[in-house]
Amino acid sequence: MSRIVILTEGKSNPTDAKTATGILRYRLDEVVAVLDSTQVGKTAGQVLGVGGSVPFVASLAGVDADTLLIGIAPAGGGLPVSWRSLLRQAIERRMEIVSGLHFFIGDDPEFRELASKYRVRIYDVRKPPPGISVSRNIARSARCFRVHTVGHDCSVGKMVTGLELARELCRRGRDAEFLATGQTGIMIAGKGLPIDAVVSDFVAGATEKLVLDAQHREIVVVEGQGTLVHPLYSGVTLGLLHGCAPQAMVMCYDPLRREIKYGNMPIPPLGELIDLYERVASYIAPSEVVGVAANTAALSAAEAEAELRRVQAEVGLPATDVVRFGCGPLADAVLAARERLRESAGRSGAGAAAS
Amino acid sequence: MSRIVILTEGKSNPTDAKTATGILRYRLDEVVAVLDSTQVGKTAGQVLGVGGSVPFVASLAGVDADTLLIGIAPAGGGLPVSWRSLLRQAIERRMEIVSGLHFFIGDDPEFRELASKYRVRIYDVRKPPPGISVSRNIARSARCFRVHTVGHDCSVGKMVTGLELARELCRRGRDAEFLATGQTGIMIAGKGLPIDAVVSDFVAGATEKLVLDAQHREIVVVEGQGTLVHPLYSGVTLGLLHGCAPQAMVMCYDPLRREIKYGNMPIPPLGELIDLYERVASYIAPSEVVGVAANTAALSAAEAEAELRRVQAEVGLPATDVVRFGCGPLADAVLAARERLRESAGRSGAGAAAS
Repeated sequence: MSRIVILTEGKSNPTDAKTATGILRYRLDEVVAVLDSTQVGKTAGQVLGVGGSVPFVASLAGVDADTLLIGIAPAGGGLPVSWRSLLRQAIERRMEIVSGLHFFIGDDPEFRELASKYRVRIYDVRKPPPGISVSRNIARSARCFRVHTVGHDCSVGKMVTGLELARELCRRGRDAEFLATGQTGIMIAGKGLPIDAVVSDFVAGATEKLVLDAQHREIVVVEGQGTLVHPLYSGVTLGLLHGCAPQAMVMCYDPLRREIKYGNMPIPPLGELIDLYERVASYIAPSEVVGVAANTAALSAAEAEAELRRVQAEVGLPATDVVRFGCGPLADAVLAARERLRESAGRSGAGAAAS
Repeated sequence: MSRIVILTEGKSNPTDAKTATGILRYRLDEVVAVLDSTQVGKTAGQVLGVGGSVPFVASLAGVDADTLLIGIAPAGGGLPVSWRSLLRQAIERRMEIVSGLHFFIGDDPEFRELASKYRVRIYDVRKPPPGISVSRNIARSARCFRVHTVGHDCSVGKMVTGLELARELCRRGRDAEFLATGQTGIMIAGKGLPIDAVVSDFVAGATEKLVLDAQHREIVVVEGQGTLVHPLYSGVTLGLLHGCAPQAMVMCYDPLRREIKYGNMPIPPLGELIDLYERVASYIAPSEVVGVAANTAALSAAEAEAELRRVQAEVGLPATDVVRFGCGPLADAVLAARERLRESAGRSGAGAAAS
C-alpha cells in the first residue's frame, strides 16, 4: 500500500485531472491528499466529484506520504513547467514519483540525478517496455472471449466501463480480466501497455501482446482509447481495435458532449458510430456492439434514467451508467454474445475454438 | 551526389528489397552496385525489374563508393544479424550508412563507436526528429490542395504514384510537392517524416506538420502508408489520413494481390475500400477518391490494358499504371477535383479559402 499525494496544481477539474479522478475512484484507500494550492479547504469529492473527504493541500509540508502521483493527462503529455519545483520537493522528501505523461520524468537529467541522490524511484508508466514490435494478426485466434470498450470521443468512460465490466463478470464467477491500455488504467490495474506511447507501427502488436498474455482467461475486457473519428487520436483507436480483434464491443458516450474533445468538430450520431465500429472491426474478425455505457455524471437521476430510455430506443441496445446503475445489463449482453458465438461455433463444428 | 552501394544480401526480391527498388528507380545515377553475394553476375534490372545494368557485387572490396544504403524494409524493421559484419566493413572503409530500419544503427553501441572512430555519419532516416506532438486538427484549413495516395494493401505503389503525380503536376506548370511519410520516400525526396516510427499519439500531428510546412505550395501529394484494413498497420494509415485531411485521394492497388501482405487475410473489393476511405476521411474534411493507380508490373502490356479497362468499369474512375502509361489521367482528375472545389467555394462565397 502506498500513501499517495495526487498532484493537480491549478488543474483540479474533471477534464484535466482525468488521472486523478481514476486513482481516487479505484485506489482511494491509498490517497492521502490532493496537491493544488488553489483548492485548499475543499475535499476531492466537492471539486472532482469523486474521492469523498480526501483533502486538498497547498504543499507537501507536514503530509505523511511516500508517493507523488501526477494527476493530469494533457493532450501532448507535457509536464507543466511550473510543476518542476514541486517534483524536486517531492524527490527531496524521498517520495517516489508516478507519472503517465508522454514526457518521461526519469529521463530528464535533473530529475534523474536528484532521484539517484535521494534513492527514489521514478515510475514513468507510459514508457513502453522493450520488445514491442508489429502484430502477427493472431489475437483474433486467441482462446479468450474479447470485449473492447469503444467510444464516441476520448474521456467518456471507456476505462471505468472496462474496469466495472470485468469486476461484474468476476462477481458472477467468470474468469475475467481488465486489460489496461492507457496510463491511468495501468496505474489502477498495476500492469498493461501504454499503447498510445508505442511506435505507431507497433500499436496493433502491443495490443496483441496484451491479449495473448491474458488468453488463459475466459474473458478479457480491453480498455479503449480515443475514437475512430478523433482527428488527433484516431490512429491509436484503430490500431488498438484491430490489434485486440474484439468479438463484442461496448459503446461509451457522454450525452452532453457535442464536440470532439480537443478536435473542435461535431460528434456523429451514436448509431452511425456503432455501424462504423462494427464495419471497421469486422475486416479483421466479426464483431458487434452489444451495449451502451452512458456517462451521466452531470445529469440528475431522473434525467439519467430518461437518457438511458432514449438511447436504448435510439440504438436498440441495452444501456446503463456503470457508476450510477451498475454494470448488470452490459455483463448480460456480453455473456449473451459469448453464448451466441459458442452456439454458432458448435453448429459449424468449430466448437473447440470458441469453447 | 553520393556513390551508393545498396545492401540487399540474400533478400534481392521486389518484396523484401522495397527500399532498393525505390532508390534504383529515383536515384539511379548515384547507385554504383547492389551488394548480394547470391546474385553476382546479374544486373539489378534482371533481378529487381528496375536499375538497368547496375551490377550485383559479392563484397565491398574494389567498389568505389562512399555510402552503404540498407535496401530492405522488413516488417518490424529489424537488422538481420548476419548483416552486422557487412556494416562494420562499410564503416571501416569510411562509407556513410543510410538506413530506414526501425532499429537505429546510430544508437547501437558498437556501430556508434566504430562510426566515431572512422569519422563516418550514420543516417537513420526513420528516427523521428524532436518536437513532434499531437495534431491541432488544422491541416484541413491549410491553403494548399491536399492529395493523398491510399491503397488496398502495403507495397502496392503509393510512394511511386505520389512521386509521379507530383512530377506530372510540376511538368504542367503547377507548384506541386511530394511529401514523404516513409523511409524510402524520405531517402528519395531528401526530406519528410517517418510517420510509422513516431509515438502513436503523434501520427496525425506529424502528418499535419508535414502539410503545414508545405502549405505555400499550390498542391501537395502526401505519400500513403498501409491500408485501413491492414491488421498490422491500419492505425498508421488512419492517423496519416486524418492528419493530412486530403481533399482528393488516389487509390493504388496490385491486381494480382489477393491477400493482405503479412496479414494472411483476403483483401476487400476495391469499390468497397474506396467507399470506406471516403467515409472515414470525410469525418475530418470532405474527401473523394478521384482515380485509381494499378501496379501492373507482373502483367503483359495487353493484360495491363485490359485490367485498366476492367477496373475503370468496376469503380467508374480514371485509371492508369503510372510507371507504364504515365500519370496523365490522375493529374487530370486531381486538377478537375481542385477546380470543382474552387467553383463550389466560389458559389458559397468562401472563395478565399480555396483560391
